[in-house]
This record gives sequence, structure tokens and C-alpha cells, in this order.
Amino acid sequence: MDVRNPLNIGAAARAMSNFGFPHLRLVNPYEVAFQNARSAVGAAATLASAQVFKTVAEAVADCSLVVGTTAVGHRDLQHSLLFLEAGASIIRTHTASALCAILFGSEKFGLSNEDMSHCHWLMRIPTRDLHSSMNLGQAVAICLYELVRDPEAAASRTTTAGIAKGPSATAEEIERITDTLLDALRASEYPKLNTSKSFHAAVRRMIRRMKLPQGDAEFLLGMLRQMVWKMKRDK
Amino acid sequence: MDVRNPLNIGAAARAMSNFGFPHLRLVNPYEVAFQNARSAVGAAATLASAQVFKTVAEAVADCSLVVGTTAVGHRDLQHSLLFLEAGASIIRTHTASALCAILFGSEKFGLSNEDMSHCHWLMRIPTRDLHSSMNLGQAVAICLYELVRDPEAAASRTTTAGIAKGPSATAEEIERITDTLLDALRASEYPKLNTSKSFHAAVRRMIRRMKLPQGDAEFLLGMLRQMVWKMKRDK
Repeated sequence: MDVRNPLNIGAAARAMSNFGFPHLRLVNPYEVAFQNARSAVGAAATLASAQVFKTVAEAVADCSLVVGTTAVGHRDLQHSLLFLEAGASIIRTHTASALCAILFGSEKFGLSNEDMSHCHWLMRIPTRDLHSSMNLGQAVAICLYELVRDPEAAASRTTTAGIAKGPSATAEEIERITDTLLDALRASEYPKLNTSKSFHAAVRRMIRRMKLPQGDAEFLLGMLRQMVWKMKRDK
Repeated sequence: MDVRNPLNIGAAARAMSNFGFPHLRLVNPYEVAFQNARSAVGAAATLASAQVFKTVAEAVADCSLVVGTTAVGHRDLQHSLLFLEAGASIIRTHTASALCAILFGSEKFGLSNEDMSHCHWLMRIPTRDLHSSMNLGQAVAICLYELVRDPEAAASRTTTAGIAKGPSATAEEIERITDTLLDALRASEYPKLNTSKSFHAAVRRMIRRMKLPQGDAEFLLGMLRQMVWKMKRDK
């Protein structure tokens, strides 16, 4: 969560406490906003235990599913986009056995493309097209409500589930693959590499779309490392 | 709605605008709070057309269903109490042909017994017992979300489950990636390569598990080819 307004941090924390989600992680919060938020009504425990990270990558490192939230808008999305209800059902299945992070952007700008490149997919709340942008605290509250709404009914709805491939790689493992692939491309003099940030984000998204299970992630990482080693040795 | 804090009026109005509920009715608002709220971001139209009433009775006069909201707590309720999801389903049916009012109390005290006496029944959001009292703007947002969630559309949406990723790569394209990856591994002097057949099969399976869409397949193939070119040139 990347927020600048203490009211928003406080409101998000309160909704988390209302619905029983204890782990709030903040990416680069304004120190003042964070300290003010700690004094918000009814959110003491969640905020007291909130963790602060420098980057999205670090904040989601131990999560094997990372879901971004967006009000859509005019941006061209390069991710799959699900409505909240469908997304929540996948998240519930995932969290039965592993960690999931739900990413919220700043109220003003939402998630950046760089933030989104850490996500496996995006979800949106079904707001009106004419006024789709929600208050952050309200958006958080709705997402968490949907996650706890009616677990049983939801469970039966989830039957389609998702293609069991063994435990998923964590975001940290996936990020290591991304980095090593970029390393390999650099060593190979890959031409488009200089277009930098947007290219990095495209690579990051591609790797995430692969939904690698842990075993495959290790396998692939080993291959890439070998190639990097070879290219650097011979250059 | 009986609220004293302009932020709460504004937040409620914004959620109403997000979900397409135009009729905000305020019972006895503090004049100052109401005027301040009119200037809230993203709620202009809803607030501009908000109506003010002296009593709950007048506010709900033209509604044939009046539903109160409560976080429950210690009060003895003399009404039926439904969870939001069940309540919303009744409200949706009702509003197909008639008006319904949903009553929210002040953030501090909730609805009074007098307020509740105007209600046909009550509903509550499934918060934790240990921290059931929600921020008013968030509670309004969740109730309206539940009303528009659209169980049917959602159900049909959910069956598709797996996140469409665009047309899948053909077997031929996938095989080309497999071959090129094996080529790259050979060029990199990857150690396990000599175990040959079973290793090839493992690589092939891994690539297939990625379920690459066409665009990603081309992207990845281009990367691998570049690495092969580099390794062969420099060896």
C-alpha cells in the first residue's frame, strides 16, 4: 500500500481490523502520515504491527500471489483484469495454503506500471464507468468484505479453481528469475534492452504470467544462471 | 442518514456516486457539517441533490421497505437481523418495483431505538465480533457494493476462472521454444544436458506448463535466440 494521507492509512487499517486481516504492509509511506495514522481510532493493533518496506518487491517477497487493484480508467492494461468477486474467489483458494498480497496504489495515482509489473493479475470493484475512482479506505473495506463475505458459498463457487501445479513460486523467487533473465539479456546484447523501465516491466509481467511452480522456478533459474555465467566468461 | 462529520457525509456520497445510487437523504444534519461536505471531492452531484429532513419518518415516507444497519453490539434487538448478503438480495428484489431506504446511524451511536422502529428489519456487515464497529463511509460503500455486485453475472464470470491471457501459442511455437532453450543450454555448457532424453522431456514439460500466450512465446523465443547467437559468437 502506497499512501500519503494518514486518514487513508487509518481507514484501511480499521477495515482490516474489522474483517480480521492483520498484516498491513506499507511501501515508502510518508513518515508523518504514518505516525499520524498510528493514532487513528479503532486501528491500533493493525497499525502498531504494520511493516514498512522500501519497495514493492520487498513488501511482497514472501507472497506467491500478488494481486493489484485498479479503477481502470484510460490506461492500457497489460494484465488480466477480473471483477472483485471472481478475483476474491481465486484469492480465497490461494490463501488456504499460501500467502497472497493485495496491492493498493496511492489515492491520487493508483498503482504505477512498475507497481503493476509485480502483480500476477489485477482486479477491480464494479463501480460506474462515469465515476470509477474510489476512496482508498472504502476500496480496501470492500475488497476485504468480499473476501470474508460468505466463505462457504464461495468455496462451492470456486470449484473451477486453478490448475494444480504444485506450490507456486514466491514473489521473491520470481523476482530472482526476472533479474537473472534481464542479466542474461544484457550479457547477450539484447537490442531492446535500453528502452529500460517499460521493457523491464514487460519482462516482469511475462515471467509472472508463467505462474511457475516452485520446482520449475528453480529449474529455470539454474538454466539462466548457467547462460549468464557462460556469456560473461566468454565476452 | 444521521451524521455529524462532514468527512463521513462526503465519503458516503462518494460511494453512492461510485455505485450509482443518486438519492442521499440526511436527517437533521449539522448545518456546518453538511455545508463542508458539499465541497468533498468526487461527490458533487450526489451531495448537491441531497435532501434534508427533520425526522426519519419524513425521510422514508415514500419508501415501502426500510432497512436499518447495525454493528449489533450489546443492544437487545427487537428486529430480525440479516447478514448483508441475504439482506441485499431482498432489497434488490424490492427495488425492482418500489423504493427502499437503507438507514445508517451516526458513527458514534449508531441508530437509536426510535430510528430502528421505522425499520422493517436490520442487517449487518459480517465484521469480527471483537471489532465490529465500522467507519461509516466504509459501511455505506460495502452495502452499496453488495447491492450492485450482481450474483448472476458474477457466477457466470467465475466459471471461466483462469484469467484469459490471449490466444495460446501453438504446439509448433512451443516446440520451437523448447528447441531453442535446449540449444542455449548446450551453448552454455549446462552440466546435466548429457542425461539427454529424460532431461529434454523435463524441459519440454516445463515450457508447456507455462501455458504461454502467443505474444509471450514470440517474446521469449526472441530472447533465447539472442542468447544463443551471443554464446555461439563468443565461444
